[in-house]
Amino acid sequence: MVQRSVQMDQPVENPATRVAAVMSAIRNRIANRTLTPGARLPSVRQAATLFKVSTSTVVTAYERLVAEGAVLSRPGSGFYVANQAAPFTLSEVGPRLDRAVDPFWVSRQSLEAGDSGLKPGCGWLPPSWLPEDAIRRAIRQLTRSEAPVLVAYASPLGLPQLRQLIARRMADRGIEVSPEQIMLTESGIQAIDFLCRFLLEPGDTVLVDDPCYFNFHALLRAHRANIVSVPYTPTGPDMERFATVVAEQRPRLYITNCGIHNPTGAVLSPVAAHRILKLAEQHDMIIIEDDIFADFEHVPAPRLAAFDGLDRVVHIGSFSKTLSASVRCGFIAARPDWLDGLTDLKIATSFGGGRLATELVWTVLSDGSYRKHLDSLKVRLSQAMITVAGQLRSLGIVPWFEPQAGIFLWCQLPDGIDAADVARFALDRGIVLAPGNAFSLSQSATQMMRFNVSQMQDQTILPVLKQALDHARQLNRASSQAK
Amino acid sequence: MVQRSVQMDQPVENPATRVAAVMSAIRNRIANRTLTPGARLPSVRQAATLFKVSTSTVVTAYERLVAEGAVLSRPGSGFYVANQAAPFTLSEVGPRLDRAVDPFWVSRQSLEAGDSGLKPGCGWLPPSWLPEDAIRRAIRQLTRSEAPVLVAYASPLGLPQLRQLIARRMADRGIEVSPEQIMLTESGIQAIDFLCRFLLEPGDTVLVDDPCYFNFHALLRAHRANIVSVPYTPTGPDMERFATVVAEQRPRLYITNCGIHNPTGAVLSPVAAHRILKLAEQHDMIIIEDDIFADFEHVPAPRLAAFDGLDRVVHIGSFSKTLSASVRCGFIAARPDWLDGLTDLKIATSFGGGRLATELVWTVLSDGSYRKHLDSLKVRLSQAMITVAGQLRSLGIVPWFEPQAGIFLWCQLPDGIDAADVARFALDRGIVLAPGNAFSLSQSATQMMRFNVSQMQDQTILPVLKQALDHARQLNRASSQAK
Repeated sequence: MVQRSVQMDQPVENPATRVAAVMSAIRNRIANRTLTPGARLPSVRQAATLFKVSTSTVVTAYERLVAEGAVLSRPGSGFYVANQAAPFTLSEVGPRLDRAVDPFWVSRQSLEAGDSGLKPGCGWLPPSWLPEDAIRRAIRQLTRSEAPVLVAYASPLGLPQLRQLIARRMADRGIEVSPEQIMLTESGIQAIDFLCRFLLEPGDTVLVDDPCYFNFHALLRAHRANIVSVPYTPTGPDMERFATVVAEQRPRLYITNCGIHNPTGAVLSPVAAHRILKLAEQHDMIIIEDDIFADFEHVPAPRLAAFDGLDRVVHIGSFSKTLSASVRCGFIAARPDWLDGLTDLKIATSFGGGRLATELVWTVLSDGSYRKHLDSLKVRLSQAMITVAGQLRSLGIVPWFEPQAGIFLWCQLPDGIDAADVARFALDRGIVLAPGNAFSLSQSATQMMRFNVSQMQDQTILPVLKQALDHARQLNRASSQAK
Repeated sequence: MVQRSVQMDQPVENPATRVAAVMSAIRNRIANRTLTPGARLPSVRQAATLFKVSTSTVVTAYERLVAEGAVLSRPGSGFYVANQAAPFTLSEVGPRLDRAVDPFWVSRQSLEAGDSGLKPGCGWLPPSWLPEDAIRRAIRQLTRSEAPVLVAYASPLGLPQLRQLIARRMADRGIEVSPEQIMLTESGIQAIDFLCRFLLEPGDTVLVDDPCYFNFHALLRAHRANIVSVPYTPTGPDMERFATVVAEQRPRLYITNCGIHNPTGAVLSPVAAHRILKLAEQHDMIIIEDDIFADFEHVPAPRLAAFDGLDRVVHIGSFSKTLSASVRCGFIAARPDWLDGLTDLKIATSFGGGRLATELVWTVLSDGSYRKHLDSLKVRLSQAMITVAGQLRSLGIVPWFEPQAGIFLWCQLPDGIDAADVARFALDRGIVLAPGNAFSLSQSATQMMRFNVSQMQDQTILPVLKQALDHARQLNRASSQAK
């Protein structure tokens, strides 16, 4: 993205530009420390003379700087350089993105769309696809719990029965782990957040897939990490590029999905898994493998943690995709000597975990009906996958990969259409889509889009999508005629 | 605390010291970059010659460095400098504390003590003092909720009805706030954590009270902040010291309790509140006021946010102290222009909040019985406060202040007794206490101890406390005779 800078070298003629010029001059002096924190700015009169503008221009400029937080006004005394930087806003870190492809924007639109909003761009199932009855049953059971379950803090690692159950489930996927190596968290993303706090210093390099789950970018920006990416292929990362980036950039961490990759639906091949682990060992890199789509799988794919024995691979998961996103519960499974440090971080930043939520998750998971729910859910998803792929193909939208399981279709739009144009058009009609560049660090997924097949059931979505494609085609035509 | 360093200038004679010397020599070479990440260490034979030790000493030293993570072993190839620093552990930041007064240790002991453990050192009520029936009623009501309440993500700011209710409750304490200025969080400490992420850069200076809630220290260490403190008096911080520290150290943030101060039970005077706000404005400092003990108050104390109108004061709270610590829910009330940035951080690090928990809290709070619960709770606490203060005085333990409300008594031990000695003795007998230095950045509360009056009901506590005091007196006598 090319940033258009204000033309500061031109003579300053219009009033808005004059205000901007004064603001910019003051900002520069603050940046190069000609004006240090606490210093008094030139008086309005002095500044008017200095910058050859009117006093009212200076007043406007100073007031805007006050509004920005760069400058303080002390009535009767003047204007001073603020002591402190403006608050840390994630949107200011990293490249400024078009709102239509900004990761936050997609998340917020989806979360704000409400229960009845149309959101094929979101990453979760419609409420009616989740095990509502099992949850109601578990809640009823909760009313008969002992008082501490209802009112007291959880233990630092969290409910022992649930950690045992998670260890057994991991064993089914070939990962040997003791319940003492498992710490419960509020969510899968909070699990990764704890690990970033534990493993990263600001400025450390972190490797992600391109494309990857967009919130990895957001989270890593919050940790002030230097993010690098490697293209993802239908069998895992492009191994040649992966080897080069790992050797040259020396990332501290690699964050990826296991089982089913988000957004592509691809699955890591055993060969790629082996090479990734060898490179990680050779270059002392730690891997976080995010397994939150585990329960969608028909056949378990290879897990890096299974090969590695949880040495330099950390495994995280949650139950928000197949059980409930309202009942928050995730987990970290890591090498034993890390649990103390992770527990300290959990206590420091969130004290005890949500005991009620973990009891509820445990009750549902140990209820035989959860298995049955999964079986019928998987059938329903397979059918939706076929239907939606067909519908999209009829519009010229082609899946990049035919996933064996999961909820996502990662698709190429026809005719060089920009997914951001399509997303903008759809949003004006109340439909939240997920344009490819929200997932792509290199911004190379302009013509890609992720569809959640479970959220494509509403009859109004396809017609709007068709209109959006036509609209985007017209935009393309208009822009090529203009050239 | 004086750190005793290993005597590295002395001739190296005993085997353990020889191993330590080799480790230290290698660590120094890594620190001064004579050995850079990825570099091969001298072979075992070379190192033995170089350091004039046996090869087995070198092997032991290298293996320990591998265990520490500073060095990697590649079988058949040798030892290499690890690419990366060891994980960030909070216990390594800041001074190394005696376990008996380490903030993490007190928290972990309390959380691990389980539901039946004796813990007058903890910061919460016994389960039987909390509104168990109201929670069971609210849970029963939940089973009749619409499906999305049970399975879908919350909106980014969180349940609107609960935010409205919090705004009304804040209005009762003189703080004008719109529900749009309120963001729900998982807990009070998570609320402060979001604000630290939003407002702090690593290395920024943060001011706390001395003593203060020990988890403030832990949280600020996680943010790599530079922590400074000012002594707390019965009417608020020592204002002369406060003014000096603010002017000289230029803290970005001041984190404090409002209403009832933890651990002292003191209440800020209006005069101190006014001076704090003036100094904050003058030196561009932001204040986080933590109001989690609000519902214990008989008469509302002045809130900084009420005077300031939520401009440079941010107000946070939670329901873990008077409603439930198992159902996680806290909140931030801040100036309107900060909400977007805070929401981005929430999405990036925890995505949607816990919808079920917020519905549950809202149901209980809007149930008339919560008020009644508070009324009888306050009576019960006042009685416990009087009884426990009398019991402690009979042992020579004197409250520093007679709190008007709340759960804590901050007390001075008799005869120069060290609270850490008392805490260690009690812990061996299964009782978790809270020695003063866990709360004190300056470590000047050696003879102080915080008692939670609601957790002093068990008959076995006082006799053990008496024995612990006698034991500590003997230790004092022995150490003064040794001098």
